[in-house]
Amino acid sequence: MKIIIIGLGLIGGSIAKTLSSSNDYEILAFDSNPKSIKNALDNQSIQGSLNSLNDLESTEYANSLVIISTPPNVTNKILKSLDFLFNSSVTITDTTSSKSFLNKTLQKFHFPENFIFSHPVAGSHLSGEENAVANLFDKKSTILSYHNSVTSQHLDRVRSLWSKLGSNISVLDVELHDQIFAYSSHLPHIAAYALLNTLKEFKKDDLSNFSGGGLGEFLRLASSSPEMWTDIFSLNEKNISLAIDDLIKSLNVLKDKIGNDPQSLQVFLSELKDFKESNY
Amino acid sequence: MKIIIIGLGLIGGSIAKTLSSSNDYEILAFDSNPKSIKNALDNQSIQGSLNSLNDLESTEYANSLVIISTPPNVTNKILKSLDFLFNSSVTITDTTSSKSFLNKTLQKFHFPENFIFSHPVAGSHLSGEENAVANLFDKKSTILSYHNSVTSQHLDRVRSLWSKLGSNISVLDVELHDQIFAYSSHLPHIAAYALLNTLKEFKKDDLSNFSGGGLGEFLRLASSSPEMWTDIFSLNEKNISLAIDDLIKSLNVLKDKIGNDPQSLQVFLSELKDFKESNY
Repeated sequence: MKIIIIGLGLIGGSIAKTLSSSNDYEILAFDSNPKSIKNALDNQSIQGSLNSLNDLESTEYANSLVIISTPPNVTNKILKSLDFLFNSSVTITDTTSSKSFLNKTLQKFHFPENFIFSHPVAGSHLSGEENAVANLFDKKSTILSYHNSVTSQHLDRVRSLWSKLGSNISVLDVELHDQIFAYSSHLPHIAAYALLNTLKEFKKDDLSNFSGGGLGEFLRLASSSPEMWTDIFSLNEKNISLAIDDLIKSLNVLKDKIGNDPQSLQVFLSELKDFKESNY
Repeated sequence: MKIIIIGLGLIGGSIAKTLSSSNDYEILAFDSNPKSIKNALDNQSIQGSLNSLNDLESTEYANSLVIISTPPNVTNKILKSLDFLFNSSVTITDTTSSKSFLNKTLQKFHFPENFIFSHPVAGSHLSGEENAVANLFDKKSTILSYHNSVTSQHLDRVRSLWSKLGSNISVLDVELHDQIFAYSSHLPHIAAYALLNTLKEFKKDDLSNFSGGGLGEFLRLASSSPEMWTDIFSLNEKNISLAIDDLIKSLNVLKDKIGNDPQSLQVFLSELKDFKESNY
């Protein structure tokens, strides 16, 4: 089976690298950056490349699997430009972490039966094909979301992709997906950026000399691609806005207890420690 | 020289473990938990123990170094109970990370010439003597703070302690110390607790399946001792309260940009990434 990866960044490149050891797939790629294509050809993670996305109109790509692995806004544009593939024998999936806005695009096309959302919960603060690794998805969650118009032939193709990549697959409704990820993933990144901004504004030299362990690791969340996170935040704005309000509420609870009630503060911190230890 | 460690927890125990390989010191300890004392005697990180802090009145402890290494509120009580040592040949230091409130106690005693604040910026989410390690302080910052009444004989003793432990020593004024640490260390812990509380209140099962890398490491900040952090937060309340307000301001800046201005959001995130990379 042919797999066409559109966007050879960290995620797309890692999919290619992991699958290249199997003989089940012919892996081809499309990327606007010729260096990424050259790298991937050199390290034999792909067998060829497409010159244009219109190449996909050819019958030689019938029954293939197209993976769009670009920043969310670009994914939306590509999805629209691939309308000629909707309801064909080609299966299409993505890898973004905000879904509702893409779902609106699908709605305009009456929910094609061959599009399935994928969200591999894997990554790194590093980006680009040069940082791609085999087994990035091994034992990591991948969330699938899809409309009830999707047919099992296409769904099975996407399921078997992520199984091959070693992921644990779950299924979530699109709206619930975006709500959950606003809290579980987007909000921690917001917190890292906000903390970093607070330290930046504090304007004392060598503040980093006075930080304990753990902070560096946390702030590493803010080292990911600004372009990607701008898209993710903006495209999941409604949920993230509620999550930020909840975080501010929690900060005010802490502030109040610190100022007024050390005893209830200690109980509060102990309960949070217990919650952390049984969940993370 | 005799070193008396009051409180054989992670910090006190690690000081004992690191120094025990040197022949320059006789290391004795006092701890209300007999198990910690037994452990430390068994692994030969201390050579003996005190039955009571009043033992320190004996002339055999002249010219020794007393290190109080207990949670901040306990440190304050012990400090008061050791008033018979003020302005003696014995040098006294502590290891807490909030200083101003202890300084008020010192003020009541007209700033004894033999008390120097120490704050080793080292630790772990684990606590207790059983988690003590040699070299915990190696290449880590230790901040000293002291009143101008302190004499060089006592100061040199504390300086040479931290040098032996491998620390990089800096000196900060007490007020500035507490202000800086409110931002550099206490606020990241507040952020971790607040985020954890937000996730807890969100009440969705298995949220942790949907979190990416980095979050676990960050939340680890909230695994430290609730007793210790209750003290640290409460005793540095004024500065922490300002720091929380600044963090909330930064969260609102992000929220506003996410809702209204993706372009300026991307510039903002890029600048924070640059700041992170040159500072942390």
